[in-house]
Amino acid sequence: MNTLAVLLASLVVASSVKAQMKIEPAEYRQADAVLEGFIAYDAGVTTPRPGVVIVHDYMGVSDYVKMRAEQIVKLGYVAFVADIYGKGVHPTSPEEASKQAGKFRRDIALMRARAQAAIDELKKRSVVDPKKVAAMGYCFGGGVALELARSGADIAGVISFHGSLNTPNPEDAKNIKGSVLVLHGADDPHVKAEVVHAFQEEMRNAKVDWQFVSYGGAVHAFTQTKAGNDPSKGAAYNALADQRSFEEMTRFLREIFSH
Amino acid sequence: MNTLAVLLASLVVASSVKAQMKIEPAEYRQADAVLEGFIAYDAGVTTPRPGVVIVHDYMGVSDYVKMRAEQIVKLGYVAFVADIYGKGVHPTSPEEASKQAGKFRRDIALMRARAQAAIDELKKRSVVDPKKVAAMGYCFGGGVALELARSGADIAGVISFHGSLNTPNPEDAKNIKGSVLVLHGADDPHVKAEVVHAFQEEMRNAKVDWQFVSYGGAVHAFTQTKAGNDPSKGAAYNALADQRSFEEMTRFLREIFSH
Repeated sequence: MNTLAVLLASLVVASSVKAQMKIEPAEYRQADAVLEGFIAYDAGVTTPRPGVVIVHDYMGVSDYVKMRAEQIVKLGYVAFVADIYGKGVHPTSPEEASKQAGKFRRDIALMRARAQAAIDELKKRSVVDPKKVAAMGYCFGGGVALELARSGADIAGVISFHGSLNTPNPEDAKNIKGSVLVLHGADDPHVKAEVVHAFQEEMRNAKVDWQFVSYGGAVHAFTQTKAGNDPSKGAAYNALADQRSFEEMTRFLREIFSH
Repeated sequence: MNTLAVLLASLVVASSVKAQMKIEPAEYRQADAVLEGFIAYDAGVTTPRPGVVIVHDYMGVSDYVKMRAEQIVKLGYVAFVADIYGKGVHPTSPEEASKQAGKFRRDIALMRARAQAAIDELKKRSVVDPKKVAAMGYCFGGGVALELARSGADIAGVISFHGSLNTPNPEDAKNIKGSVLVLHGADDPHVKAEVVHAFQEEMRNAKVDWQFVSYGGAVHAFTQTKAGNDPSKGAAYNALADQRSFEEMTRFLREIFSH
């Protein structure tokens, strides 16, 4: 077994050395708005592979989502960091961020259109298998991914990490085409038990293929180190929940891209 | 990459060929009761490895739990099929099964003692690393695994598959030493929303390390083909939820046995 382990380990090292991570700005449009996200892929792979759109939290496109994009590439997929707000819009305070996010929360049609534009842009790329595309997001972005699904987007699945679950359009859940995975901090004060209950009823009534994971002890923003370490503030990093939700995401993507 | 895949595949085949699955009856005692379960292990492995106690559903020890035991062995662990009812007690109808299960549901102390006897028996075996032991169960057995945890058993974690979540002793959750994973059918009519809510409150109040997964569209007994295929009956097999919960179990066991 030891010899086998050494052999396997050296093969894994040999294969990862070959990876050529590319992460490039990607300018695209939705109606007359110019958006700027990023595309990340392994340039050492020549065949089309599944693609994942990643939607930012309320602070907009940041190094955080770029880091998540690189992780998605390491799993064997193409990652596309969506820009919901628009090129050059980078809130620098929670107040500005809330204002930006609020603009889209009040205009769900626009939110959905912006997310769809990222899906369309990703599907156009030759490195991507357009039949195998998913979307995921963090906080605000988790809510965007769910609205994208409710719009009837032709995608294999969506994942929400500590995302908003409420919607003005619960009846739209009947449009959902792919699978839904929600990764939720069980102590998240921003997504209360009533909202969780309503969301599950929404999925149930629409006969969606849904999975909902609650992480005990986790609050809002549990995957983000920038949220700090004090759960009593309502948002905080939780290393266990971060690791567990990452593994859950990995399992889910493998599943939805396998057929 | 193709050469690598072939190489890896042949190594995996070479290593699995070596597995020598053993599954043997195991007689043990709890006070003056004689119990008969099974122990399953790979006789080709010489070093002690983690062990998992598997608790049967209300029908008692059956081929179903023996099948699950073999799966656990294939993951690299020792499996011990617990016998909660007693040697020779094998209900042949739902009525008999409910009567047996009821006996233990009314006597939680006895239920816990029977489960603990299986843990003690497993820890004694030389093939097992006694510091790395967990328990899991199905339906009735899921509830037994949770009661074992509430008793303060010295185990790394427990998993409940579509198990009972209610308890006469919610305050005992403070005794829980390991991690808790609940795999729940979101449409299970035998474990209603109020019970789920109370369970999560119990875990939250006791600051347990808990994770709760709800599978949309799944009802009671979703891992059991013998439950049939009609969810409107309240119990039915669900291939997707079976597969997903198996992968979740695999991830959880790897996590709790890694430290």
